[in-house]
Amino acid sequence: MSDRTASPPGDSRFFRRAARASLAHLAEIAGATAVVPRDGSAALDSGYAGVAPLQAAGPDQVSFLDNRRYAALLDATGAGAVIVAPAFVDRVPAGCAALVTSAPYLAWARIAAYFHPPTQAVPGRHPSAVIDASADIDPSAEIGPFVCVGPNVRVGARSIIGPQTVLGEGVTVGAECRIGAHVTVSHALLGDRVTLFPGVRIGQEGFGFAVGPNGFETVPQLGRVILEDGVEVGANSAIDRGSAQDTVIGAGSRLDNLVMIGHNVRMGRCCIVVSQAGISGSTELGDFVTIAAQAGLIGHIKIGTKARVGAQCGVMSDVEAGADVIGSPAMPFREFFRNVAVLRKLAKKDAGKTP
Amino acid sequence: MSDRTASPPGDSRFFRRAARASLAHLAEIAGATAVVPRDGSAALDSGYAGVAPLQAAGPDQVSFLDNRRYAALLDATGAGAVIVAPAFVDRVPAGCAALVTSAPYLAWARIAAYFHPPTQAVPGRHPSAVIDASADIDPSAEIGPFVCVGPNVRVGARSIIGPQTVLGEGVTVGAECRIGAHVTVSHALLGDRVTLFPGVRIGQEGFGFAVGPNGFETVPQLGRVILEDGVEVGANSAIDRGSAQDTVIGAGSRLDNLVMIGHNVRMGRCCIVVSQAGISGSTELGDFVTIAAQAGLIGHIKIGTKARVGAQCGVMSDVEAGADVIGSPAMPFREFFRNVAVLRKLAKKDAGKTP
Amino acid sequence: MSDRTASPPGDSRFFRRAARASLAHLAEIAGATAVVPRDGSAALDSGYAGVAPLQAAGPDQVSFLDNRRYAALLDATGAGAVIVAPAFVDRVPAGCAALVTSAPYLAWARIAAYFHPPTQAVPGRHPSAVIDASADIDPSAEIGPFVCVGPNVRVGARSIIGPQTVLGEGVTVGAECRIGAHVTVSHALLGDRVTLFPGVRIGQEGFGFAVGPNGFETVPQLGRVILEDGVEVGANSAIDRGSAQDTVIGAGSRLDNLVMIGHNVRMGRCCIVVSQAGISGSTELGDFVTIAAQAGLIGHIKIGTKARVGAQCGVMSDVEAGADVIGSPAMPFREFFRNVAVLRKLAKKDAGKTP
Repeated sequence: MSDRTASPPGDSRFFRRAARASLAHLAEIAGATAVVPRDGSAALDSGYAGVAPLQAAGPDQVSFLDNRRYAALLDATGAGAVIVAPAFVDRVPAGCAALVTSAPYLAWARIAAYFHPPTQAVPGRHPSAVIDASADIDPSAEIGPFVCVGPNVRVGARSIIGPQTVLGEGVTVGAECRIGAHVTVSHALLGDRVTLFPGVRIGQEGFGFAVGPNGFETVPQLGRVILEDGVEVGANSAIDRGSAQDTVIGAGSRLDNLVMIGHNVRMGRCCIVVSQAGISGSTELGDFVTIAAQAGLIGHIKIGTKARVGAQCGVMSDVEAGADVIGSPAMPFREFFRNVAVLRKLAKKDAGKTP
Repeated sequence: MSDRTASPPGDSRFFRRAARASLAHLAEIAGATAVVPRDGSAALDSGYAGVAPLQAAGPDQVSFLDNRRYAALLDATGAGAVIVAPAFVDRVPAGCAALVTSAPYLAWARIAAYFHPPTQAVPGRHPSAVIDASADIDPSAEIGPFVCVGPNVRVGARSIIGPQTVLGEGVTVGAECRIGAHVTVSHALLGDRVTLFPGVRIGQEGFGFAVGPNGFETVPQLGRVILEDGVEVGANSAIDRGSAQDTVIGAGSRLDNLVMIGHNVRMGRCCIVVSQAGISGSTELGDFVTIAAQAGLIGHIKIGTKARVGAQCGVMSDVEAGADVIGSPAMPFREFFRNVAVLRKLAKKDAGKTP
Repeated sequence: MSDRTASPPGDSRFFRRAARASLAHLAEIAGATAVVPRDGSAALDSGYAGVAPLQAAGPDQVSFLDNRRYAALLDATGAGAVIVAPAFVDRVPAGCAALVTSAPYLAWARIAAYFHPPTQAVPGRHPSAVIDASADIDPSAEIGPFVCVGPNVRVGARSIIGPQTVLGEGVTVGAECRIGAHVTVSHALLGDRVTLFPGVRIGQEGFGFAVGPNGFETVPQLGRVILEDGVEVGANSAIDRGSAQDTVIGAGSRLDNLVMIGHNVRMGRCCIVVSQAGISGSTELGDFVTIAAQAGLIGHIKIGTKARVGAQCGVMSDVEAGADVIGSPAMPFREFFRNVAVLRKLAKKDAGKTP
């Protein structure tokens, strides 16, 4: 396939594109200071047309530098404008404008979002959708093909419900939510601006059973799932409803793909859970906690605010606020890497002894 | 959102609720002995209305104590009745009835299931379902919207097939099964009382290929998946069909969310596989085996009856019946934690030497 | 259930079966040399009817031996013909024909595929499918029930789009692709002979956000997913689209179930990624790389051609071409197992000291 060759970001087959924008307008969007090219050139009249990485950008495109490691790419860029931190203004090529800000990545996010705004809801219900008469759906919401909406469901203004998604009885979806295709939601209350990617499973029974005389017997799972405002959940992730109390994901938290959240988990604001990580039942996270990829947390423990749990970490006990842990079982970062180094040293020594 | 505040379990938007029940009736349901309040009070005439945790329950609710750690909550509970083991009868508050049993958690499961019984099949086929004329569906079964049923499929009495689920040609589903939304089943025979949660994938080709002159060539996967009676499979889990023999999940086994079962795996009765664990091709498990979260088993090994594999464990060879293993590679629990302790000690000693 | 008893592969409820074939014809299909039975018997006239494992095969079935460990099964087989390497010809029972080849497993794959050929597309569109008028679908392609096809989608000759799959605006699917049920594809270009198993998620936004004054702000994900010719992706796996450049899976690569591929990952030809493994953003793999089950790769690293990453391995830095690594953090295989052995020795010694 010839398509492997690099294409500019924003392929028009997949992404809408806004009108050109002047340097001043972009500076306003980004909360940055506009600096015209040092060489006096002014290709700005027609405005900038889009965004691209440093190595691919042309004279009508905006690029950015966020990582010192890539500073050499800045020297050589053909971009018409570059978003940079103040320390890099002097390295911006002479014919290139600068958008100067202490938060270049955030500015990039906003300018890219200006050029390629997220899809907006197209108000209305696809005729194939099966919607219970008791459902209360805002007229500005979009209901896709083959969607199933149960009794007493509520969907807020400008929310999008993707094709074939199933909203079970009593589910509430707030305003400006983006629910992807093939999502299942039951026993759940979603705030505003919640985003669920395709294949997400919300609100099914948690993993709870007692041992009876003839095998396991299910313990009824009688809680709910609460997704607060701005929560995002990645593709094919699963969040079980609570057993007696609720499972709660705090406002602004972001979960990546294939993440597992057990029943009764309570997560604070703006937590990050990276792909394939799992949190067992009844564990509590403070605010701004980061759980890296493939980490696993046992149930019934507490993770303090701003703690960071490393990739593949196995957490078996409480983690203090602000702590950095890694390893299985979890230990402080420094201790983990010291252990690794000491074991390597001992193994080398041992190899020396036994020929 | 104000919904984060605790609500009682069994939110009426999501859960049906049965009629009130007397203490005697609840004792019968739970197989427990009813003990009236010590203070002679008798609020029992009107019966109990539901269940709640110790700290939230009111005078017409039933609660339970299963874990010694929470005994202080028992002292302070406002519940009208509490399920307890004999050792705790004396600590039940004076105005509170007791349901005494040696298995409080099982009794709780049954009383909670009395108050909030599982959803029953509503007999019939949604008009949007696409059902092959040769399919044999019991008239008491429920077929949801947009379900696809292939040729020669059989669905037993009182089974529920959730919205948009796809049952491929020849699939057999027993009686009283609960198949969630967005499930895919092919090349499979399901017993009675099988539960599949949303997004489960059963019966797709296993991961088998040979190296040919121009890349990999698929090895046809000609086996089936057998899910015996009472098996439960969690959301977004995947069970591949066998390559030549069958993949078999033994009666009463419970798999959690995001679990992966490779082709030709054979699992005994009442096994437990916790979320994000994976079992590679042709591995065999005895009865009552527990595989904890995120554990991984290599292919072609045998795990003995009642063995327990710890979280994140990496099992590369056979495990004896009754053994407890953890670590990657797997080793006995005691050995693993001894290794962790010794390495920590050596690392501290080393740190003392090298300033 | 009585179905647990072994059944021959190719249960006719689930698999089509081709006509009987002569030994000579099978030899041609397999690229093998036909050797008639040593005892002069010739049951070949009617031809062979199918395939089965050594221990189950009868006189009209073909079996194979690929692994020296199972040679005793060869001695005792009742198969009418057996595929073997030259070294085992002498051990084929006297009444059994042989198909001799240096690649028995590949020959088995081809003969099994002759007897049980993959399902072919049944040209046409199910009337329930919702297909945008601008979509360009080859008349020989099969579009299943409840499929959603967006504007400007292209589907090539003889491709199968399974029930309820969603192809978003602009998506291109090549010829002879097999897309399972409940698949979601957006922002993606698929080559020829691509296979996606049920529940696969292709092209959703990657996990990218900047920290803003009021929480996280999404960084628009403006790249695509490119799946080159012959790529296979297992059930419930997820591949995010690129942020600025593309996410690329090289020709002939095979991904197992529940695999996670982050944005901007670039994978070479004929890579293997086993179930529940994850590759973080912007990491690059050469050709013929193997990533075993539950392994995790950090972002922004390079894995050289033919490198092999072991199960549950945690890779934090580049891996050289041809290297074998395992452990978390990753290290050479030999070093890992030496470390395990040395730690065990030290722990035993320590246990001896402290009674």
